[in-house]
Amino acid sequence: MVERAGGGLSVVLADGQSSGKGAKRISNLVVRKVIGLLAEGVRDGAAARAASDYLYHERRGKVLATLNILSIDLGTQTLVTTRNNPSPVLLAQGQEITTLAEASSPIGIYRNTRPVIHEAELRPGLCVMMFTDGLEHAGDRKGQSLPVNELFKSLLAGHAPAQEMADQFMTQALDLDDGRLVDDVSVVVLQVSDHTGDLVRRMHVRLPLGPIAAP
Amino acid sequence: MVERAGGGLSVVLADGQSSGKGAKRISNLVVRKVIGLLAEGVRDGAAARAASDYLYHERRGKVLATLNILSIDLGTQTLVTTRNNPSPVLLAQGQEITTLAEASSPIGIYRNTRPVIHEAELRPGLCVMMFTDGLEHAGDRKGQSLPVNELFKSLLAGHAPAQEMADQFMTQALDLDDGRLVDDVSVVVLQVSDHTGDLVRRMHVRLPLGPIAAP
Repeated sequence: MVERAGGGLSVVLADGQSSGKGAKRISNLVVRKVIGLLAEGVRDGAAARAASDYLYHERRGKVLATLNILSIDLGTQTLVTTRNNPSPVLLAQGQEITTLAEASSPIGIYRNTRPVIHEAELRPGLCVMMFTDGLEHAGDRKGQSLPVNELFKSLLAGHAPAQEMADQFMTQALDLDDGRLVDDVSVVVLQVSDHTGDLVRRMHVRLPLGPIAAP
Repeated sequence: MVERAGGGLSVVLADGQSSGKGAKRISNLVVRKVIGLLAEGVRDGAAARAASDYLYHERRGKVLATLNILSIDLGTQTLVTTRNNPSPVLLAQGQEITTLAEASSPIGIYRNTRPVIHEAELRPGLCVMMFTDGLEHAGDRKGQSLPVNELFKSLLAGHAPAQEMADQFMTQALDLDDGRLVDDVSVVVLQVSDHTGDLVRRMHVRLPLGPIAAP
């Protein structure tokens, strides 16, 4: 996540090919590139194309990564969704859901890969959910799958806050894979709600460390 | 905040001279530089020195900024505190508080400005709080000030979670300035606690947007 040069925030989600440390390195490389450009004021579409060229050049067209950028752009007062990812992004305005699923290619394997961009007016009631394709693969081993759209719809109907929505998707994905996911899964939920409270910005992060050496 | 190349997280807090948009630009420039270097695997001390040289060169030694880096380094299993800031950092192990206040200069106005670095073994019960100097200036207009150490101590005694600790400091600072802070204030609280629950990483961000144009 990065603060935009012109005001607002962007969440950058990349998923490098395969899994483990190699994939993590690719994901980090792509995210770092995009975040650096956004922080300097480069527009989302140009940042995605730059990341694609960079990965293509760096890995000679042999490694692909999916890339999503979700931006609150205070300059234009819009919510901008940028996809280089076959997986859809779900966008709700109130209870009305739009599936952003226009054909879109991952970056890194072709020259001139262009992202698919969608803009929506920034207003209360907007809710966007994006995820890596691992979410769609949860349960594959059992021939099951997560009903992503249905769950999104029911959480919207219950007015679940963003954190609870993301938690529900993660919990159900983990359950489908008996606690050990087949593929890496990241879920991002963004909600625009009516403002209440102070003007303080807050960030809360929990990072499970696994076992720490005993004192 | 950035994920470290060797595992773990770093929180980078910079405060550019004066206030408003100019100061924000300086803060962003410093944070961007440090975050980029940390993500590439540069060590905290070297990243701080690089940011100092960069700011010195970029603004001809005429603009200063304070800089703190707080890192969970999973490679060395340590918590690393890096200060280029006259303001102290508070570090608690259980109820025992250490004030990290060794003389330390802001970056950007001298060549060869070195940070003050402190390392602690990563273990449950560790709690660190860092802040920009605005926190110490809250209440200045009334000749009052926030009893930072005392409040930290009482929140520790009450086993307050990190978010509540940060909120308490912000609320009391806002109260002292009747809701309009004299200077920008950022507060960071990091706690290492016994692990419970799943291994999912979570990030929750709230960004007040101010008034949005009516639909």
